[in-house]
Amino acid sequence: MVDILHRVGIKSSLGDAYKAVATREGVAGWWTDDVGGDSKVGGALQFRFSADGKELGRFEATVLELKPDQRVLWQVTGGPVEWIGTQISFDLKQEGDYAVVLFKHHGWKEPVEFMHHCSTKWATFLMSMKSLVETGQGAPNPKDIKIDNWG
Amino acid sequence: MVDILHRVGIKSSLGDAYKAVATREGVAGWWTDDVGGDSKVGGALQFRFSADGKELGRFEATVLELKPDQRVLWQVTGGPVEWIGTQISFDLKQEGDYAVVLFKHHGWKEPVEFMHHCSTKWATFLMSMKSLVETGQGAPNPKDIKIDNWG
Repeated sequence: MVDILHRVGIKSSLGDAYKAVATREGVAGWWTDDVGGDSKVGGALQFRFSADGKELGRFEATVLELKPDQRVLWQVTGGPVEWIGTQISFDLKQEGDYAVVLFKHHGWKEPVEFMHHCSTKWATFLMSMKSLVETGQGAPNPKDIKIDNWG
Repeated sequence: MVDILHRVGIKSSLGDAYKAVATREGVAGWWTDDVGGDSKVGGALQFRFSADGKELGRFEATVLELKPDQRVLWQVTGGPVEWIGTQISFDLKQEGDYAVVLFKHHGWKEPVEFMHHCSTKWATFLMSMKSLVETGQGAPNPKDIKIDNWG
């Protein structure tokens, strides 16, 4: 088992950072703007990526935990085979003026090349989340997203 | 042992991507502009970060491998205690129009919070490398670098 780990400091309250990961509207502002489902414990979420009207990929997850201002945990149920059964968590804590988000995409079976790619992409999306919370403007669903070679 | 993994596709030749990781001038264009030492096998490199004339941190590494257009491997010999003894590798391959860089920061003893931070930071710097090679302009030594809470 191998994990993708990241940490981002957001100059915001815990509440604003939590909203960005715990609500459909929040996630739509930094990951992909096409989010379906219900962000409630036991609910299912669908995250779809597309470009020029063509669907490029989608992920589905069940919400396992929603602890206000503290933690969000998703269990991945659909998407690329390497993602199925993995878990994605966001742990939050306040440090001075910053809401610190500790991110973990846990339970990859092998450190395949696709995992390297997803690690880099998650960092980019977490920077998009930081921008969303700090400035009101994230960069979800980038138009240059590709399955291969996306930088 | 846990690793930081990333993958970046750079629209360039292998030669140009290799130059960005294998030479002092290359690394100075995307990581920190203050690089000292000799990038040759067995040579030592020093990477220094500073802001407003104040040194914020430095890393030192011995170059273990330099395989043109294929691989660069550093052994970390100085810097934060968590980095000492870790290895940093860049493996390159051509895929169509893209030089693909597989990055690995290998041999962390524990998945500490600082490792989460470094994972996110490495992704940001690898995007800076992509920009350097594709456009001639990277973003080394960001002025907003901080030991804590740097996003």
